[in-house]
Amino acid sequence: MSDPQKNGPELTTNNDVLTYRPEIKILDCTIRDGGLMNDHHFEDKAVRAVYDACVKAGLDYMELGYKASKKLFAPTQFGAWKYCNEEDIKRIVGDNDSKLKLSAMADATRTDYKTDILPKQQSVLDMIRVACYAHQIDTALDMVRDAHDKGYETTINIIAISTVSEPELDKTLELVAESPVGTIYLVDSFGNLYGKQIQHLIQKYSKYGRQVGMHAHNNQELAFANTITAYENGANILDGSLAGLGRGAGNCRTELLVGFLSQPGYKLRPLLQCIQEHIEPLRKDLHWGPEIPYIITGQLNQHPRPAIQFNSSQDRGSFLKFYDTITGMT
Amino acid sequence: MSDPQKNGPELTTNNDVLTYRPEIKILDCTIRDGGLMNDHHFEDKAVRAVYDACVKAGLDYMELGYKASKKLFAPTQFGAWKYCNEEDIKRIVGDNDSKLKLSAMADATRTDYKTDILPKQQSVLDMIRVACYAHQIDTALDMVRDAHDKGYETTINIIAISTVSEPELDKTLELVAESPVGTIYLVDSFGNLYGKQIQHLIQKYSKYGRQVGMHAHNNQELAFANTITAYENGANILDGSLAGLGRGAGNCRTELLVGFLSQPGYKLRPLLQCIQEHIEPLRKDLHWGPEIPYIITGQLNQHPRPAIQFNSSQDRGSFLKFYDTITGMT
Repeated sequence: MSDPQKNGPELTTNNDVLTYRPEIKILDCTIRDGGLMNDHHFEDKAVRAVYDACVKAGLDYMELGYKASKKLFAPTQFGAWKYCNEEDIKRIVGDNDSKLKLSAMADATRTDYKTDILPKQQSVLDMIRVACYAHQIDTALDMVRDAHDKGYETTINIIAISTVSEPELDKTLELVAESPVGTIYLVDSFGNLYGKQIQHLIQKYSKYGRQVGMHAHNNQELAFANTITAYENGANILDGSLAGLGRGAGNCRTELLVGFLSQPGYKLRPLLQCIQEHIEPLRKDLHWGPEIPYIITGQLNQHPRPAIQFNSSQDRGSFLKFYDTITGMT
Repeated sequence: MSDPQKNGPELTTNNDVLTYRPEIKILDCTIRDGGLMNDHHFEDKAVRAVYDACVKAGLDYMELGYKASKKLFAPTQFGAWKYCNEEDIKRIVGDNDSKLKLSAMADATRTDYKTDILPKQQSVLDMIRVACYAHQIDTALDMVRDAHDKGYETTINIIAISTVSEPELDKTLELVAESPVGTIYLVDSFGNLYGKQIQHLIQKYSKYGRQVGMHAHNNQELAFANTITAYENGANILDGSLAGLGRGAGNCRTELLVGFLSQPGYKLRPLLQCIQEHIEPLRKDLHWGPEIPYIITGQLNQHPRPAIQFNSSQDRGSFLKFYDTITGMT
């Protein structure tokens, strides 16, 4: 909060931590990761509000959704942001006449990437983020090469990293290093990792000569802290979402990142306005954030799926039952 | 989560961080810090449930409330836990036939400590925690000496530390070091501090040859992370509260601490049961946790008072108004 023009009057603080690095980029994934909570059924006005807020706040990237296969995921069941068709994106952003770059995520084995990802010249997207489990790395790197050759910035996001052994990870990263990928992402899908582990992994990822990114989940209320740790260890692209909206426990809150980073271009107020008007109202239907079932799956290093299912049921609030079931005590 | 008997079956994890240290103690301050949200009006059954949960979970300390002056704070306005009269405590815990130690907090200049804090032989309390601003250190150390001489364990909790300059803090700590106090607490009252600052301060506090403690607030969702950082830098007594119940944004969640620490004696399930049955139901009247107004005061390094007031008003949810007011933009 170093710029009085940015966030209102500056107050006295003994915050002497250096939180400025010109290479830093924030990627807001509110619509993409939040879409996992509502099958990507966002109203256009919400997507447009997030887009406008990201532009006004001076963020670097906004992720809109997935490039999912329509053969595997029927368009009758999912909203537009499961597929990110070009015409849907352009309905929101036009030709994206702003500095904000746009990205979409493509899951390994769930995307008809050769046909559904258009050449960059035909798309308003700037970046394709390829998500994969470590054992899917061959497929994922083929997708990376495809997107790279089509003219996009690319990232590889190796998910559920808290379940990957060190030798498996080392081998995976060696393969990644042979690809043209621009950014390697540390993804704590289960919200299981503590700061020391983030530090270790970011340092490992940083050895391969690519930009390193951080995507955290908030099961143990560590998403923001782990993102700071990643930043301190050299990660230069940091994921956040408004009010933390995202699968299960959600993500690092973009509004916390903007408060932390002393980049002169970032502004908090547009984000707060969007959260108030478009994100918080979603809570009447969607239950994200570090509630107890998500804490439990995070502590146990498990996928949040059963916790999401539990929190969507009438049992929500009776989390002792969830604990007893998942730990096999009943 | 290393003991299968403790938290149910153990699952595969690459968590290789050492989180066991026999000196570690957890202090649960649910009733004391939570009392700041309801003027200490807890029903007996809630206080007893927290006590029972702390005993069953194997925690080390439970803090019940304050030893506030009845001249300054009229007993008609506040609940029993503002004063921690001996008969009130004993109504809940009897003679406290358990390993759980009990503490009360005494605020400098707000306590008739010479009369209201009984000799240890007449009290079921084990520890007096003296809270003070840095500029109140003389009074506070007189209170420490009084409690120490009466037979209690003592701590000094220098509050609002994010507003204290380094030279002022150094001088304060030198005075503390001349006292008989057992523990020096780092207290981030405003929830303003980041991990690097916690590390710096805990290392500074550790130079004075006393046990060091950590009391975090969760304005920026860093209470748990900062408590881990304090642990990693040598703090041996860690404050938490159930579901994070505490003033404003609340505290580090005790249930997260218990999940993190691999102490064989700590058990999670009794805490979850108490949270489900007695703490979460309080949310219908009390709004604690890292909501946006608390994030804003944390980022601005301000007391949470205006945010608490705002969140108790009909404007709750319209936090853009709060932001504009507190930053002087309206």
